[in-house]
Amino acid sequence: MTPEFNLIKQYFTRPTRNTKLGVGDDAALISLSAGMELAISADMLVAGTHFFADCDAYQLGWKSLAVNISDMAAMGANAKWATLAIALPDINESWLAEFSRGFFACADSFNVDLIGGDTTRGSLTISVQIMGEVPIGKALRRDGAKVGDDIWVTGSLGDAAIGLAHLQNKLQPHFTLADHYLEYCLNALHQPQPRLALGLNLLEIAHSAIDISDGLLSDLGHILKAHNLGGAIYLNKLPCSIFTKQHQHEKQIQQYLLAGGDDYELCFTAPQGSRNAIEKIASDLNLPISLIGSIHEGACLIVLDNENKPISIGKTGYDHFA
Amino acid sequence: MTPEFNLIKQYFTRPTRNTKLGVGDDAALISLSAGMELAISADMLVAGTHFFADCDAYQLGWKSLAVNISDMAAMGANAKWATLAIALPDINESWLAEFSRGFFACADSFNVDLIGGDTTRGSLTISVQIMGEVPIGKALRRDGAKVGDDIWVTGSLGDAAIGLAHLQNKLQPHFTLADHYLEYCLNALHQPQPRLALGLNLLEIAHSAIDISDGLLSDLGHILKAHNLGGAIYLNKLPCSIFTKQHQHEKQIQQYLLAGGDDYELCFTAPQGSRNAIEKIASDLNLPISLIGSIHEGACLIVLDNENKPISIGKTGYDHFA
Repeated sequence: MTPEFNLIKQYFTRPTRNTKLGVGDDAALISLSAGMELAISADMLVAGTHFFADCDAYQLGWKSLAVNISDMAAMGANAKWATLAIALPDINESWLAEFSRGFFACADSFNVDLIGGDTTRGSLTISVQIMGEVPIGKALRRDGAKVGDDIWVTGSLGDAAIGLAHLQNKLQPHFTLADHYLEYCLNALHQPQPRLALGLNLLEIAHSAIDISDGLLSDLGHILKAHNLGGAIYLNKLPCSIFTKQHQHEKQIQQYLLAGGDDYELCFTAPQGSRNAIEKIASDLNLPISLIGSIHEGACLIVLDNENKPISIGKTGYDHFA
Repeated sequence: MTPEFNLIKQYFTRPTRNTKLGVGDDAALISLSAGMELAISADMLVAGTHFFADCDAYQLGWKSLAVNISDMAAMGANAKWATLAIALPDINESWLAEFSRGFFACADSFNVDLIGGDTTRGSLTISVQIMGEVPIGKALRRDGAKVGDDIWVTGSLGDAAIGLAHLQNKLQPHFTLADHYLEYCLNALHQPQPRLALGLNLLEIAHSAIDISDGLLSDLGHILKAHNLGGAIYLNKLPCSIFTKQHQHEKQIQQYLLAGGDDYELCFTAPQGSRNAIEKIASDLNLPISLIGSIHEGACLIVLDNENKPISIGKTGYDHFA
């Protein structure tokens, strides 16, 4: 068997759970469950842009899939299938073994089948497409927010960005990260946990949702821009680590919290009457959740400090070409 | 609007025909028609491996989608939706305008909606995923060939490989290509025409099918390997140009014909009793079609020359890592 086909067989072919025809033919075949439509999303990760070329292969495998499953969470879709197209500079079997181990660890955690893709020679580039089912007409979208909605976020913000800043030696010298917190930040950066279960539970409750990949302000901004709405969020309500809380009056840390990106938490809006339901869902899932602000008329997004004064925001999120 | 989002809006957002929710949210949404299942395929094209970095952007846009639609043709699926993830070294607006023009020219030719994707910074890499509908249980596959089947191919073989060899100055000096034939070869290389309509018409007729991307021998080889079958094909029955016919006794030209790749024709097997039906379908589609051999017991693929003697084959097809 030629090298390229052997790679696919050895590293990317596994039994599937929900797939009619998997890896090995010109295309894969899947069926949708009754009453469902298909949500589809794609992401490309490039060495040097999204990850360090020498990063841990297992973690890269995990993250390549996780960031895509996060898009399914943001739609309230049940992630079920993925394809993986990867360009490799050469055949490094130990790297591939680790990458595929991480990829499939994530796939197994979220019951996703890898059903197809491509391997080719080139500068390390990873392209994943994720597909999931969602009840017809019920998908969470970015454009459903209403005036008066609460704004919620899951988990904790800023940790991944702080971890990245540490690796890039960009943290100002007076910030010292305790070892366990640094480990936490790096784990958040390298192995994000998409909030798939929460997304599924928000169907029929949330009016809009998005996953925080570029940064809270940038991503929440998409929700607002859909209908030129405004929003007010409160700095002291943003969920974050003790370290971040201690330093959130400092501009660099504020940036990581509000605009660092790579959080892969969900940001969603919902009617005020749903507060109890949402808190119960989160509690049942053992997932931290925070009410951080509300949707208003007008097209501005403001962040209010502890004295309810607007703070000025610098760069609002990650843009590859900025 | 930030540069990255502006790119998507300006160059990759167009009205859709068959899509519930297109570009702009965390995921796209599509529904399947009743009685249909979804075929999914992905391809990645890398500058320097699949195309010259300085190639014509329009043609690259066309080909990026066309090679994926060809996978749908090989399944007998009706291509309907695509996603496009692209890494760009920088924002070159005139290049992007041409690339997207070529991509959408192909999409419009085959009624495919672009429904999502990603743009990012990196070495020029293009990842396309194509999706299509096929009646449940009826998809053409690689593993359905039976002993006694005829082997057919569409169109003409070898022209794209000859065009590529010319561009790379690899054609032996005594081969002179007439201008109009060179133009034909380059067009075959740069703007292949996937045989989508034929694929749809082969449902319930062909036992197996594959599109010829790596090369006839390599791709037909996949059909044979599925059940360890053998095949015999006749050199003088292979459809090709007058130039190739004139020189097909010469090893270099034989290689292009049998193993050059980039043909994007369909190779399929079907019962002998279907010959008339197949010829009628091809005639109605105004598509050349050729009966080139047959499926046998045993696990060998042999190519017979004009005297029915086996010829020896060198490299059987393109492998990125060989």
